[in-house]
Amino acid sequence: MIAGMHTTQDDFYVRNHGNVPVIDETLHRISVSGQVSRPISLSLNDLKSRFERVSVSAVMQCAGNRRADLFSVKPVSGDPWAPGAIGNAVWTGVRLKDVLESAGIMCVGETHVVFAACDDCEAEGKRFRYGVSIPASKALSGDVLLAYEMNGEVLSPEHGYPLRVVVPGYAGVRSPKWLASIEVRDKPSDNHMQQREYKLFPASVDEASADWENGTTINDMPLNSAICEPNDGATLCAGPVRVAGYAVATGTSVARVEVSSDDGVTWTQAALNVEPSTPWSWTLWTVELALPEGTHELSVRAWDSAGQTQVSQVADVWNFKGYLSTAWHRITVTAQ
Amino acid sequence: MIAGMHTTQDDFYVRNHGNVPVIDETLHRISVSGQVSRPISLSLNDLKSRFERVSVSAVMQCAGNRRADLFSVKPVSGDPWAPGAIGNAVWTGVRLKDVLESAGIMCVGETHVVFAACDDCEAEGKRFRYGVSIPASKALSGDVLLAYEMNGEVLSPEHGYPLRVVVPGYAGVRSPKWLASIEVRDKPSDNHMQQREYKLFPASVDEASADWENGTTINDMPLNSAICEPNDGATLCAGPVRVAGYAVATGTSVARVEVSSDDGVTWTQAALNVEPSTPWSWTLWTVELALPEGTHELSVRAWDSAGQTQVSQVADVWNFKGYLSTAWHRITVTAQ
Repeated sequence: MIAGMHTTQDDFYVRNHGNVPVIDETLHRISVSGQVSRPISLSLNDLKSRFERVSVSAVMQCAGNRRADLFSVKPVSGDPWAPGAIGNAVWTGVRLKDVLESAGIMCVGETHVVFAACDDCEAEGKRFRYGVSIPASKALSGDVLLAYEMNGEVLSPEHGYPLRVVVPGYAGVRSPKWLASIEVRDKPSDNHMQQREYKLFPASVDEASADWENGTTINDMPLNSAICEPNDGATLCAGPVRVAGYAVATGTSVARVEVSSDDGVTWTQAALNVEPSTPWSWTLWTVELALPEGTHELSVRAWDSAGQTQVSQVADVWNFKGYLSTAWHRITVTAQ
Repeated sequence: MIAGMHTTQDDFYVRNHGNVPVIDETLHRISVSGQVSRPISLSLNDLKSRFERVSVSAVMQCAGNRRADLFSVKPVSGDPWAPGAIGNAVWTGVRLKDVLESAGIMCVGETHVVFAACDDCEAEGKRFRYGVSIPASKALSGDVLLAYEMNGEVLSPEHGYPLRVVVPGYAGVRSPKWLASIEVRDKPSDNHMQQREYKLFPASVDEASADWENGTTINDMPLNSAICEPNDGATLCAGPVRVAGYAVATGTSVARVEVSSDDGVTWTQAALNVEPSTPWSWTLWTVELALPEGTHELSVRAWDSAGQTQVSQVADVWNFKGYLSTAWHRITVTAQ
């Protein structure tokens, strides 16, 4: 069930890799260093007073959203997320671009913007502070925010108070909460979260054989869609049934959403929510299907403006880490 | 068979919708009008002398590339192109952006850049000059060229001499040859080529039921790949066989190419050509498969940097106009 175009903080999924740090906003400072001509250190008040306040409506989603579907092929590591590791919010803060330019960012050849956060994580027997990076081209696009509000409210501790990064279009892992510092340099972050998590491998690779240097770093998220209403396993009254959900595209836009009750032999086109949105928002959709008595499998797939669509079979996107689960989303309902 | 990273003019596919106009370069002028503060008329010499000369390596492909595959589901209209309605070239000319800015382009709300060409076309019993449009955001991206050279040679008449538009990433239809004029306005071109061709419809729509207002205008081209060597139907020596072809992505980049000889149960990863290229070039790939005696179906699929891949079944992308044929490309070979 989707409550609306924007997801409240309470309803928004929470995926943290460590603790929820307790931060005193009046003492917290964000440093900007590395390949910059004027290294700076900014308080929250500095950020709010020195840079333009901007808002963007954007999806935040875990790269593991819909991972649960992959278990039907064979087990994967990670939390078995249903299609709910996603939300859409209006994020408010300042442009990362403006902050980087005020520090005099110098881009020479390959350049990356490295974020360090305040949460303590643990992996492979080591403790470390969360950190990731994004390419400078994305960081300077004007779309990336250092955000202090979500839907007009101060960020809650679970969502990164007092300041988080919001990288629209990218997997949630690249949008760290509790931001501590920013460094500009010539290669991606060395952090475990950048180097040993959130990479995509072919189906033939497993934990033991994974060459992490050769996985595809997950940044842009793929075209995807899901049925959020009715619930999987629901029992309904036979007759007209409202089916609803979301679709997301990155770089392109959602052009069409289709629902099938006969495993893709025929499709019914859904109505797309026409509420004005940014290129980074999700598209909500609804369709009414006439379901006779019996058990039905419903499938959904989205098409984007480049004529791309989702694959039908889960096996075709399976990977041992369980990322980017984008096959047709299927639910089973019983009409009586 | 792909000769190399760049396709010569002689080898490059030719898809025209009318005649090949004979144009005297010394008399030809390009006008820029509509929502501009300074309408201008430019000779070829003006273009070459007043604007920066730039080159971009980019794919040009017909939206009907690989259409032949769709006939296995049911017939479609249009030429039954094999995977050869595509080529990659270094295009040289001037930035459309520079020309539009010199004319003082005014973007207010929705803005489109309309191209009129010199070729005479005929459709639905009417004769007209070829014309299409692209959104102003794309026209002003800096990537779109008014090109007068292809791989360092003057354009041949078949490829648009003396001047053509090159819109990297878009379907070939949006890159008119024999450019005559440019108009900036608040809606897309009214031309038949824009309104009644090159739109994508669901599989349930046919010629009679098509509502052309509701089709998806084909601009950005989807992720695709094809096997170019060996030829479909070839007889080979059993043992190691070299398989090669191309992959293309738009907005994202090609991250992985895989070839299967068992209908996708297992895949072998291809080596990608690492020659430096622009985001608009194709990616060439090769792989060696050990084929025992017998008949084999080989399939290829590409993955992009956003973890998107191609669908397996032709039926899932079938549309009555036969555009954007992107299911796994399959060929049959006999090893003996």
